[in-house]
Amino acid sequence: MARESVNKVVLAYSGGLDTSVILTWLQEEYDCEVVTFTADIGQGEEVEPARAKAEAAGIKEIYIEDLREEFVRDFVYPMFRANAIYEGEYLLGTSIARPLIAKRLVEIASETGADTISHGATGKGNDQVRFEINALALRPDIKIIAPWREWVLLSREKLMAYAAEHGVPVEQKRDGTKSPYSMDANLLHISYEGYDLEDPWVEPGSGMWRWTRDPVDAPNTPQEIELTYRAGDITAIDGKPMSPAEVLAELNRIGGEHGIGRADIVENRYVGMKSRGCYETPGGTIMLKAHRAMESLTLDREAAHLKDELMPRYATLIYNGYWFSPERMMLQAAIDESQRVVNGQVRLKLYKGNVLVVGRQSDSDSLFDESIATFEDDAGAYDQSDATGFIKLNALRLRVAGRRRGR
Amino acid sequence: MARESVNKVVLAYSGGLDTSVILTWLQEEYDCEVVTFTADIGQGEEVEPARAKAEAAGIKEIYIEDLREEFVRDFVYPMFRANAIYEGEYLLGTSIARPLIAKRLVEIASETGADTISHGATGKGNDQVRFEINALALRPDIKIIAPWREWVLLSREKLMAYAAEHGVPVEQKRDGTKSPYSMDANLLHISYEGYDLEDPWVEPGSGMWRWTRDPVDAPNTPQEIELTYRAGDITAIDGKPMSPAEVLAELNRIGGEHGIGRADIVENRYVGMKSRGCYETPGGTIMLKAHRAMESLTLDREAAHLKDELMPRYATLIYNGYWFSPERMMLQAAIDESQRVVNGQVRLKLYKGNVLVVGRQSDSDSLFDESIATFEDDAGAYDQSDATGFIKLNALRLRVAGRRRGR
Amino acid sequence: MARESVNKVVLAYSGGLDTSVILTWLQEEYDCEVVTFTADIGQGEEVEPARAKAEAAGIKEIYIEDLREEFVRDFVYPMFRANAIYEGEYLLGTSIARPLIAKRLVEIASETGADTISHGATGKGNDQVRFEINALALRPDIKIIAPWREWVLLSREKLMAYAAEHGVPVEQKRDGTKSPYSMDANLLHISYEGYDLEDPWVEPGSGMWRWTRDPVDAPNTPQEIELTYRAGDITAIDGKPMSPAEVLAELNRIGGEHGIGRADIVENRYVGMKSRGCYETPGGTIMLKAHRAMESLTLDREAAHLKDELMPRYATLIYNGYWFSPERMMLQAAIDESQRVVNGQVRLKLYKGNVLVVGRQSDSDSLFDESIATFEDDAGAYDQSDATGFIKLNALRLRVAGRRRGR
Amino acid sequence: MARESVNKVVLAYSGGLDTSVILTWLQEEYDCEVVTFTADIGQGEEVEPARAKAEAAGIKEIYIEDLREEFVRDFVYPMFRANAIYEGEYLLGTSIARPLIAKRLVEIASETGADTISHGATGKGNDQVRFEINALALRPDIKIIAPWREWVLLSREKLMAYAAEHGVPVEQKRDGTKSPYSMDANLLHISYEGYDLEDPWVEPGSGMWRWTRDPVDAPNTPQEIELTYRAGDITAIDGKPMSPAEVLAELNRIGGEHGIGRADIVENRYVGMKSRGCYETPGGTIMLKAHRAMESLTLDREAAHLKDELMPRYATLIYNGYWFSPERMMLQAAIDESQRVVNGQVRLKLYKGNVLVVGRQSDSDSLFDESIATFEDDAGAYDQSDATGFIKLNALRLRVAGRRRGR
Repeated sequence: MARESVNKVVLAYSGGLDTSVILTWLQEEYDCEVVTFTADIGQGEEVEPARAKAEAAGIKEIYIEDLREEFVRDFVYPMFRANAIYEGEYLLGTSIARPLIAKRLVEIASETGADTISHGATGKGNDQVRFEINALALRPDIKIIAPWREWVLLSREKLMAYAAEHGVPVEQKRDGTKSPYSMDANLLHISYEGYDLEDPWVEPGSGMWRWTRDPVDAPNTPQEIELTYRAGDITAIDGKPMSPAEVLAELNRIGGEHGIGRADIVENRYVGMKSRGCYETPGGTIMLKAHRAMESLTLDREAAHLKDELMPRYATLIYNGYWFSPERMMLQAAIDESQRVVNGQVRLKLYKGNVLVVGRQSDSDSLFDESIATFEDDAGAYDQSDATGFIKLNALRLRVAGRRRGR
Repeated sequence: MARESVNKVVLAYSGGLDTSVILTWLQEEYDCEVVTFTADIGQGEEVEPARAKAEAAGIKEIYIEDLREEFVRDFVYPMFRANAIYEGEYLLGTSIARPLIAKRLVEIASETGADTISHGATGKGNDQVRFEINALALRPDIKIIAPWREWVLLSREKLMAYAAEHGVPVEQKRDGTKSPYSMDANLLHISYEGYDLEDPWVEPGSGMWRWTRDPVDAPNTPQEIELTYRAGDITAIDGKPMSPAEVLAELNRIGGEHGIGRADIVENRYVGMKSRGCYETPGGTIMLKAHRAMESLTLDREAAHLKDELMPRYATLIYNGYWFSPERMMLQAAIDESQRVVNGQVRLKLYKGNVLVVGRQSDSDSLFDESIATFEDDAGAYDQSDATGFIKLNALRLRVAGRRRGR
Repeated sequence: MARESVNKVVLAYSGGLDTSVILTWLQEEYDCEVVTFTADIGQGEEVEPARAKAEAAGIKEIYIEDLREEFVRDFVYPMFRANAIYEGEYLLGTSIARPLIAKRLVEIASETGADTISHGATGKGNDQVRFEINALALRPDIKIIAPWREWVLLSREKLMAYAAEHGVPVEQKRDGTKSPYSMDANLLHISYEGYDLEDPWVEPGSGMWRWTRDPVDAPNTPQEIELTYRAGDITAIDGKPMSPAEVLAELNRIGGEHGIGRADIVENRYVGMKSRGCYETPGGTIMLKAHRAMESLTLDREAAHLKDELMPRYATLIYNGYWFSPERMMLQAAIDESQRVVNGQVRLKLYKGNVLVVGRQSDSDSLFDESIATFEDDAGAYDQSDATGFIKLNALRLRVAGRRRGR
Repeated sequence: MARESVNKVVLAYSGGLDTSVILTWLQEEYDCEVVTFTADIGQGEEVEPARAKAEAAGIKEIYIEDLREEFVRDFVYPMFRANAIYEGEYLLGTSIARPLIAKRLVEIASETGADTISHGATGKGNDQVRFEINALALRPDIKIIAPWREWVLLSREKLMAYAAEHGVPVEQKRDGTKSPYSMDANLLHISYEGYDLEDPWVEPGSGMWRWTRDPVDAPNTPQEIELTYRAGDITAIDGKPMSPAEVLAELNRIGGEHGIGRADIVENRYVGMKSRGCYETPGGTIMLKAHRAMESLTLDREAAHLKDELMPRYATLIYNGYWFSPERMMLQAAIDESQRVVNGQVRLKLYKGNVLVVGRQSDSDSLFDESIATFEDDAGAYDQSDATGFIKLNALRLRVAGRRRGR
């Protein structure tokens, strides 16, 4: 099939085997210049080695960027204000990183005069959708090459053969082993798919998990931490001010130590299939629990309930790749409007996989009024007889119905 | 103030101090016959002692009933089909028991020719609302006496004085101590309010918890269990068929042993205030996690997402006391419609407060299709090029907007 | 491109030019047997002429069916129980007919041993999606041929040329003219697209409309009608019992006479573009207004509000082609649960495009209680002082917030 | 019953009989100073006469204010951005005026050192709730006197007797008649309740309606108007720039002439009963139809659908009295976020009760793309084959389910 003509391609380039093959393949098949873009979003691997590889492949425009602060500040933090969780279990670790990559790809395309972007996501997954819809929302005329949907190298074997034939370097992991899982990582999480996870009745081998200790091996003594919130975002841990990326890195460290944030789930992909995934999200798991606790003290009841009802849709939008859509922005406006009062501290106890809330306070914004809630005499702060009218009028519609229908 | 005239009152009677004082107070203030109703809904205390006390107070019509199976089968199970959770944390243990009590109160009123019911819930809480709205929905002409909203005995001291003055027996607990907390229990949970919980920054004393071990003291070895689902309900544990109440009792036992199901939360009451509550829901916590896992394999994506969006409202309806309302029945109809396919087994690992899903299967209804989801060559089960059209049309509206608005 | 091999195709065949060309094209391109299926769903054109045309084309298995009762009873009526309206304006006239056609196509495929179905919907519209998703939901292995997406005859000129070349008969309309609009009709509505409608600032020519009088030319005297409802469905007009299809035909007749049910809208297609459409839905417009009036008297407030909140999603599901989906069935279960009490009569005044409700009553199920609602003395049916407690507790959360935040 | 002690009361004072009696009654019963507040919100009656009456009653602090612009700009316009409509029929004319009155009452209380406000709404209606919840949200310590819930003058007869006894002047209408209906009016609408409306089967007498012509008597020739929108608000009529209140007044005038905006409905009050009300909302009816048309051209599909799903809740919040609540502000933030692009013109035809959209355009923000939507050859703007992948992946979940479940 004749290839569409492209002038220059910006490739989301990790430096690993897959995107190295794609790099060569793009050069050969499309006979065009390639710009590589490699971002540090906290995946825990060096990004600088990608430079030498790109240079070796003859690339002239090489972008290597540390996006960790932008990632947490502009993507992870807004999402956690919503208490977003997909299908009751998944903290959207992969989903939330894609719009940032898509944004930088099209920005770099504009900077370098490229008309095309490319990525290494497969044709079965959600990531292709997230990359492409977000990119098209930001720059509607961008062309996209998704090699996995075009080529014939649909097995690892064929990919290795192509690499050998075209001189693409294939490295061994330093320890000589290679994980059998398909993995993705960023500052929010690491994910595992494929291999023995393809049977949802089978528990994955304990060697799979990389970021968290097995709860059985975690410390036998609980650890307490205190988080400080300002407008719904964490600004300090144990009283020490930190930037967003510092907060998340530190919570990952502590949470991982205590075996927090493992999830083993079957999820529904946007492209229509169910898939099994395992995730480690230590910091995010702590953040979700703590944010809810901070809100429980400071947020109005109906504001909180409205957030709870909007959340599943908000989470699905992010999962499906609609970060840069008007409907996500509408929901974000509603959520952010609610967060001005979410200020204070939360104390947590971390222990062998558990995140336990043991205290929450807010000098400026607590709506907990002991004088009203007390079981002791409240000196008139609340008039119990008000409840009679409250109940009678709330029941009125049901009483009328009962009378009419002969109950 | 002159009392309204009543002919006979059915009292929700626990046999404890509060309802014993109410019993005497009703006889004195209203000069009417009282029928006592004491139910075993799994609160873990003997109900038969209530008979002797009622007889001693001169009661002629005494109802003592074991409602455990009806409670779990007709209230707890339907609620768990919805994955109901209030404000992200509360499993509605108290809320779900009230409609059953309200139902029996008005049924007994009809059987005994009583025109009035009475209960011992305070004027600040949710339970008065739940008792009364549910009762009025079922029998719109029923009169209700809520002594806590009427009388002047609004402190423990005054209550004790009244008891002493009117010869109401005040027992000591067998161990000579009395919990300083206000508690409620049934087969689904036990709750704690008041005392040191009135400061939300303070962690409750470790002696408060009664049903679960402290995770620190729980077994050092994980335990695996397998639950069997049929139409969304658990019908067997480790292959052994059990009735609904047996299932819940057994899961409480196992979960409690492993320190599962403690929650310490600030919640928003229907009457408008925030309150702090601690809950132990060992079996329910296992059930929620397992049910979600069973659904993840068998439920259609959009059915699951619709359930997630409806859930917060469904939970709020139960929390607020609207079990016997048309809107709850509408939501239940939608939820139950989805559950016919929720059949199969879930394997769980229980360990020191953690409920970990390690496997799920469904011979009849699994929608997990390995041939499609696989990372290996799928032999044509899924055509990756379909994703191109899928993405392009899903992005079309955003591309048009981008073009028009000069992005 | 080589065609996929098919053994036999069931074609949704109107007998018009487009599907006649498709019929020939299928025979030629796929070299397979074709079964024709022509349904009377109230489009107002004879279906029998399709038989002769199909026979002339050499078709051996010809299905011609009157589906009007099934269409209204099983599709239109359930939809109107929901008060479904898409984007505030569109009564889903085309959308609701597609699942029935899809259902019969796959049923006929099973009866005749065909492995494929085909239809004449274009690649830009919603109808292709509705046909195909509903068909695939009912028979997942069915093959589908959508000629408009495959062939090169993408203009009217080319189509005519193909017809001429292959001897497909091209009839003139009896009056020698042909509408310049793309139209679709069934018992619920007739629609117009294309031609001068492609500029949304331009009003269509008055000659476009076919089913309704121009309100300016409608009778100068209002007409009253009375509709009888049973469980949410109309069972009689002016006291005369009628079948569902009879009801809709009669309301179309009366409504059309009074210029009722024209709509001129810009709508959002599922495939991502905006399009302009004009619709005449005389009977449906009356039904929507009347059903809401019947519900206003008989439906509980919260049930009605829940329906209103679920409606947009329900309407979108039908618009997008998900009638036979589990999520539509869940919503239908909730809606139908609410309709048992929707019984009674509604009186309407029809006048020059207006549908005015002038009365509603329900002997069995009215929840309107004059003794409570009256502005006169109600003899104690309602205690106004109850409102004080009702307001105070509903405002409590806002008062606490105001105090804390120094308002 | 002993009255609560108050120092000074701000009374919402119309100058009519009811609030004049209340004025005297407050002076007598509470023995306190009264401040009167009379606002012109477009009810169509002179407000200055209230000054002389208040002076005659000995009032020293008299507030008479023209709030028409604030009313439309800050309350009506934001509400119409949401396309708010309660229970499918009611345009919230009364509901939206109450928060403004409540706001001014508490502001005047602060200015004059008053600790109390008072109003003339009855104990059965929604208005008491709207006044009081909004006032308490703004000033949580304000005391409220609602005479209709306190006194014994619960019939018109007793009220007249009180007036006569205390020298409260009772005027006749200029034409010597008095409407038998309970009415309320402001720039958005006029409402009617009571009298023959108390039987929902009875059509009100034609003499009831005051603002609109009977459609039968409206002009025989349609009138066209063009509305200009900027960020979702109307800024000009027929090209002539106008202020918000001018726009609404002019649309009322034109709409009333053409018999537009009558509604006769049974609605569900927040206090639990159903009531019958008739409304004339000529300008608002035009605004709702036109705003939807403007959005249909300029708003993204998913933004529009999200608005449709949020709308019923938003409308209910306003109906129930929660304008100054955090949840209304959250929804408003989401709605307003969507409106920046709602710019352009809408052309309407008004005729005997009908509001017909005949054109819409937007130079800056139209998302209608003729090159894509055309039925003619689109020169490649849209690739029809994309639809194949779109449909196949959207149907994938249903196909998998169908295969597994043996359909």
